[in-house]
Amino acid sequence: MNAPATALAEVTDAARHGAKAARLARLIAAGAPVPPGFAFPDDAAPEALAPALAALEAQSGLGFGAPERPLLLALRSSPVETAAPSSPAILNIGLTRDTLPGLAARVGDRAAADLRRRLIQAFAPAAMGADAELFESLLYDRMKFSGVESEDALSLAALKALETEYLAAVEEDTGERFPEDARAQLSLAIAAMRTAWAAPTARILRGARGLAPDSAQALIAQTMTLGVGPGSSGAGFATTRSEEDGAPGFQGRYLAQAQGEDALMGLRTPRLLTEGARREAAQTAPSLEAEAPDAATKLEAQAALAELTLGDACRVEFTLEAGELHILDAQPLRPTARGAVRIAVDLAEAGVIGREAALLRIDPSTLTSHLHPTVSARAPRDVIGAGLPASPGAATGAIVFSSEAAETLAAREQAAILVRVETSPEDIRGMHAASGVLTARGGMTSHAAVIARGLGAPCVVGASDITLDIEGRTLTTADGRVLHEGDIVTIDGSAGEALAGSPELVQPEISGAFAVLMKWADEVRRMKVRANADTAQDAKVAIGFNVDGIGLCRTEHMFFEKNRITTMRRMILAADEHARRAALAELLPMQRSDFIGLFEIMAGLPVTIRLLDPPLHEFLPHGPREMNELAEAMGLPLKVVTRRAAEMREFNPMLGNRGCRVGVTYPEIYEMQARAVFEAAVAAGEKTGEPVIPEIMIPLVSANREMELLERIVERVAEQVRGESGAALCYRIGAMVETPRAALRAGDLAATAEFLSFGTNDLTQMTYGLSRDDAGRFMRDYVAKGVYPEDPFHTLDVEGVGELILLAAERGRARAPGLTLGLCGEHGGDPASIRFCELARFDYISCSPFRLPIARLAAAQARLLSPDSS
Amino acid sequence: MNAPATALAEVTDAARHGAKAARLARLIAAGAPVPPGFAFPDDAAPEALAPALAALEAQSGLGFGAPERPLLLALRSSPVETAAPSSPAILNIGLTRDTLPGLAARVGDRAAADLRRRLIQAFAPAAMGADAELFESLLYDRMKFSGVESEDALSLAALKALETEYLAAVEEDTGERFPEDARAQLSLAIAAMRTAWAAPTARILRGARGLAPDSAQALIAQTMTLGVGPGSSGAGFATTRSEEDGAPGFQGRYLAQAQGEDALMGLRTPRLLTEGARREAAQTAPSLEAEAPDAATKLEAQAALAELTLGDACRVEFTLEAGELHILDAQPLRPTARGAVRIAVDLAEAGVIGREAALLRIDPSTLTSHLHPTVSARAPRDVIGAGLPASPGAATGAIVFSSEAAETLAAREQAAILVRVETSPEDIRGMHAASGVLTARGGMTSHAAVIARGLGAPCVVGASDITLDIEGRTLTTADGRVLHEGDIVTIDGSAGEALAGSPELVQPEISGAFAVLMKWADEVRRMKVRANADTAQDAKVAIGFNVDGIGLCRTEHMFFEKNRITTMRRMILAADEHARRAALAELLPMQRSDFIGLFEIMAGLPVTIRLLDPPLHEFLPHGPREMNELAEAMGLPLKVVTRRAAEMREFNPMLGNRGCRVGVTYPEIYEMQARAVFEAAVAAGEKTGEPVIPEIMIPLVSANREMELLERIVERVAEQVRGESGAALCYRIGAMVETPRAALRAGDLAATAEFLSFGTNDLTQMTYGLSRDDAGRFMRDYVAKGVYPEDPFHTLDVEGVGELILLAAERGRARAPGLTLGLCGEHGGDPASIRFCELARFDYISCSPFRLPIARLAAAQARLLSPDSS
Repeated sequence: MNAPATALAEVTDAARHGAKAARLARLIAAGAPVPPGFAFPDDAAPEALAPALAALEAQSGLGFGAPERPLLLALRSSPVETAAPSSPAILNIGLTRDTLPGLAARVGDRAAADLRRRLIQAFAPAAMGADAELFESLLYDRMKFSGVESEDALSLAALKALETEYLAAVEEDTGERFPEDARAQLSLAIAAMRTAWAAPTARILRGARGLAPDSAQALIAQTMTLGVGPGSSGAGFATTRSEEDGAPGFQGRYLAQAQGEDALMGLRTPRLLTEGARREAAQTAPSLEAEAPDAATKLEAQAALAELTLGDACRVEFTLEAGELHILDAQPLRPTARGAVRIAVDLAEAGVIGREAALLRIDPSTLTSHLHPTVSARAPRDVIGAGLPASPGAATGAIVFSSEAAETLAAREQAAILVRVETSPEDIRGMHAASGVLTARGGMTSHAAVIARGLGAPCVVGASDITLDIEGRTLTTADGRVLHEGDIVTIDGSAGEALAGSPELVQPEISGAFAVLMKWADEVRRMKVRANADTAQDAKVAIGFNVDGIGLCRTEHMFFEKNRITTMRRMILAADEHARRAALAELLPMQRSDFIGLFEIMAGLPVTIRLLDPPLHEFLPHGPREMNELAEAMGLPLKVVTRRAAEMREFNPMLGNRGCRVGVTYPEIYEMQARAVFEAAVAAGEKTGEPVIPEIMIPLVSANREMELLERIVERVAEQVRGESGAALCYRIGAMVETPRAALRAGDLAATAEFLSFGTNDLTQMTYGLSRDDAGRFMRDYVAKGVYPEDPFHTLDVEGVGELILLAAERGRARAPGLTLGLCGEHGGDPASIRFCELARFDYISCSPFRLPIARLAAAQARLLSPDSS
Repeated sequence: MNAPATALAEVTDAARHGAKAARLARLIAAGAPVPPGFAFPDDAAPEALAPALAALEAQSGLGFGAPERPLLLALRSSPVETAAPSSPAILNIGLTRDTLPGLAARVGDRAAADLRRRLIQAFAPAAMGADAELFESLLYDRMKFSGVESEDALSLAALKALETEYLAAVEEDTGERFPEDARAQLSLAIAAMRTAWAAPTARILRGARGLAPDSAQALIAQTMTLGVGPGSSGAGFATTRSEEDGAPGFQGRYLAQAQGEDALMGLRTPRLLTEGARREAAQTAPSLEAEAPDAATKLEAQAALAELTLGDACRVEFTLEAGELHILDAQPLRPTARGAVRIAVDLAEAGVIGREAALLRIDPSTLTSHLHPTVSARAPRDVIGAGLPASPGAATGAIVFSSEAAETLAAREQAAILVRVETSPEDIRGMHAASGVLTARGGMTSHAAVIARGLGAPCVVGASDITLDIEGRTLTTADGRVLHEGDIVTIDGSAGEALAGSPELVQPEISGAFAVLMKWADEVRRMKVRANADTAQDAKVAIGFNVDGIGLCRTEHMFFEKNRITTMRRMILAADEHARRAALAELLPMQRSDFIGLFEIMAGLPVTIRLLDPPLHEFLPHGPREMNELAEAMGLPLKVVTRRAAEMREFNPMLGNRGCRVGVTYPEIYEMQARAVFEAAVAAGEKTGEPVIPEIMIPLVSANREMELLERIVERVAEQVRGESGAALCYRIGAMVETPRAALRAGDLAATAEFLSFGTNDLTQMTYGLSRDDAGRFMRDYVAKGVYPEDPFHTLDVEGVGELILLAAERGRARAPGLTLGLCGEHGGDPASIRFCELARFDYISCSPFRLPIARLAAAQARLLSPDSS
């Protein structure tokens, strides 16, 4: 068995003594003035601590419970799991009726009496079960009686009277007398710390952070540095960098005649540390620098030392006792997402940490905060609701009044703005799905505000000037306008306003520390990161994020444009191939010009073009008015058009005549698309001087024969375009692996396909037998009940879908060792899924343009964490 | 190199000399009077045949091309692949101007002249490219000139004149003189046989039978037995059994003064073989028995010998030459499906073949012809159309006017009657999907009639009294009634009538040879064969087919009954759990009584009950009238009911909130069903005295956590029912493996499930990403283009779906060696899929009741063909 207690300076094992004890040991080793103490498991018998206590007495020259030169102890929690919340410390242990005079000899009568009051007020509720409010109200009454505003203004007499009242209250409330023996106080305090740690609420809190509720804490008994008494005495905290933006600079707060976290409690206004800060804040109370320049200088040096020692920006907790500086702890700063990037980069550039450590320190998903678009200053603002700027950035989308509706739109890749009176935990999935959030009630710390900031989603809360009818699905503005579900609005989370329509948004730039971090990520990562980009607009955004190419261009979106959809519909409803070809001939130049745009922007980079994928009936009009228009445009009776459209409807469109089935059934459609691609490649290549090698991707393959048939068509068109243009046209052809069968038969596919790109959205749908459009209704329930650990549409299901992917990768490469493997679809921007792709040694991932930085960093991290990275 | 020619008696290798040559060798060895000859590859050089020819001359005492005692040869095709169609034989080779007198000395002048005419008429078109019609017309003219009705009545003089005319015609038409050298004739004939075999049409024919177009033929040169000449001379065929029903009995046809297939050509009326047959047919021409009793007796003995020798009922081809019997071939009979069973069983019972051979000889899918229901004689007949009885049996279903509609209904497991003016090859898939076929045009050999008989589907063709409007989707009867798509009709294929509505059908009984075959199959097979049965009616049919239990009882069908659907709908649209439970309490006794019925019928046999599977909205009303009724029944505003129903609608119901997801979302539904099952098990067990061990099957599982959650619910209900009833209730719980993920995670599932049943319909849908409801539109195209070798919904896709099944079987059994594995769904009745299940060592398969005999035989065959069967 280990010795029950270990001197703080000798702690090495954070798994045994907790991160705090280990951190203090490192600070001690670095020479920081940390008060001596010892660490022990929280179930150690108090008697077993005697040797350590004796050593501490010897070291400090004080005696625990000794009437002369009494030693006071602070008892602190040091959870073994870094992320576990610790219980509050119990201070001033050992201050008994007998040791009070000895303490008074050191700090004066008044300070000693104040410390005694503090001990009773904190100890009785924590260790004896007394009601804390009793003491608050006695203190309040006494202050009132004494005519003072703050407890540090109470006189010695008042404090003595208060002590008497406190002791009586303890006895009355608990039936026990306050323990006047130092060792009895310590035993009770240890038991209290143990009880607090094991309390149900503490267990739930640990569970909520994803920790084992049973994870352990160690305890630290440490010599008290008093912070109360003569000279410059007090407590506070200091940092070397701004939590807000990570910028370097010594700053912090200090409260005279204070202990522990008093400076954070807001009972009195704390002072600033430097004269500069004081001037800037126009504070009259002197700064620490002015009051105790030596201490301030030492503190700044200690903060820098802590940063160097711990390899991270820290919040240093300190106490001044009669002008002498003591360091109580140095916890890692919790900066904003932007701040974290700045700090990691600065530390790495200063050589405090390595670049790899800097890369690994940033949670990729927090980068969204760097990527918020903002409403253009030039854009007209039609404000429909004003509230609090709860989460910055701007987002445009369709109004929805329920989380389900938000999820449904998201599943169809349409932006939704979730509008609620206020949000509750049930809305989290909806908020995740929404592009922005607007609530009528709530403040900056309301549920909606907190969650939206966490998600990085633009959010306006407390827009009390709007009126919501959630049942009736309307939003009424202050000026009486009524907006309905589906109406387009824009959330300006930075300004705290909701705007009608879609004002121009300005895309963020990558610069400063963020740009440096991205550069390092690009140097480290092995996988290419491509974008899912359907339009020149998307492609430009992607280029701005230093993309490696386009991994998925969905050609169908091009057909939905106003001036094309009628031609598309004529093609779909054509009575025969001849009529179909005539409509396709009209679509050809439109597609070609789209592709030329893409190829020019992506000059020299690969562009993967997926041939038409959705069931054709998705393009058909739904309402009678549109149907009528189409009938007129086609010169056909409405009845005929309506009947043909009805005949195309499918029971399960996801599993219907879509993807390459359309290409097999109507080869002329894929012929036209291939021609548009090839002609565009020739044209763009000539213009930019960079040869374009388009990658043609065949969607929804389930058998290699589909690939063979379509490859033949594509090659025939390529041959024609070569003949017509005289250009040396090259292209690659590949299969989109979206059906389980395609994954199983990847060995066959690799005989024809030069690349396989996993469409994990569909592959997940098929593997689970679960439609993303329909899963929203019960997914919340499913994740809550732990049926699925995560929504498999957000994080790749490694056990099921992942196995199919690995199997396909293995079989494909066994057949064709040079086969290119990629992943497109939502998972391409999910760090956990990217990690999976690295382990499977994919060649690239492809994600939406705005997730590119996340994917680049995640790819770098995945590479660093990969077993074969070195 | 092998010797170019092999004496017929010495042929052993059918792969070299073809099945015909090998068969003849076996007949010779058995002592049959087969004319001697030799076999050789069709590309052998004629000179290389000299030794064999010399041996033949020596054996027969005749000389090829010799003026005295000339040897004539027949040249026959012997395809290496048994199923390949052979080219017609060329007869009488070697009959030249020089050998004619020698032949005349043997058979007389007139017969010799007739043989000469036959040679020229057959040889010139086959070997010299002459136009066959030239000779037909010269023959016709000559018969007219001579005033005779048949070529055997032509005089010697007329035949001589005809020879002259024929020779002139040859020279005129081909520019070549007719070869008057025996060896030249032989060389030309061999070349002609080779050319005919390699001709495009022959290649296409072989391809159409699924053979390699390049498969080879051998040739047989055989001593001619003339069939023309003095005494009893002629040709014919005899069998030992009826092709119609397989009943034993010597029978056949004989044509005097005839060669080859003359008796089948219908130029003259052939005679019958026995006096009995002659009397029965009231034929005046004497039977062979009467004309040549010795030859008839010998022929009967030879037919029996051939059956014994070849182990199958045969059609024996024979020639009589001057009263002497020669056997030219003995090909396996091609009986009807019923006849095949009778013959196989008779042969096995007679010890000619083993029982295993008998079992393997029957194509299971042909058994449907034994399984036709018939319209009850007591049922009233409302005839709506009368035509020809093209394919026997009766079927009831909804009228459809297109193959697509038939396939759509079939996909939903609803019976369709396909009504067409006439059918074309494009309708084959629709006919396959339909339960019966009705056409307005066509005869007994029309496309519809032939295909329907092949499929075993009841069919009436040529119902000219109905009027069809295929576009408008109506059928108008002779008496002016108009029927629409969806109206229920019944096809009586045995009577040739279509009836309105659904008259009572009488189910077939298993008896006679069929029953014996089934008994043998049951003795041989290892796998259990269960039925998919939802109702007591289904269960009774299954019991009649000697079922081993119910493998799939779909509980949802029970809710569609008129008096239940409203309660079901109230349950579905209930505002909260309380209201839902109230409706479920009403459904409980109904389900319980259904289950009691099933358990009583299946006393002692396992019954697998699948808990509710379809998306709940499938139960909701669609039309406004029904919606109104429901609103009234629920006492709710129509608007509310309509809205709730609309909210439940899904984009892809197949991938939506269905299967166990419903059970997880609304546990009270599965609770009610489990209670109904358990209470019924207790009640039925008490009544029949046979303990019922129900098997509860959880549908559409994708994660084992679903199984765990639902198993807990089921067990809790079981515990309650045990407590309430005091019965020792046992049950088994299992998972239906329908999603690829369930297959991949079968190892997990086996921790909870006691059995896994593969629902291959859904599993195929998910693996291909292909909805059966929607695939009909393009499946024809897909199979035609060879994208899929077969419709994967009919025959299990071994490469994709099959791999998932094997993987699941392996993982499930690795986790739980005693795990029961079964397959339900359409593939459970498909012989190829059953073979797969045997190889995977499944415990059972389950199919629709009427396919049970097919499945039982297929399971027996699969066992016999399995590598580990012995």
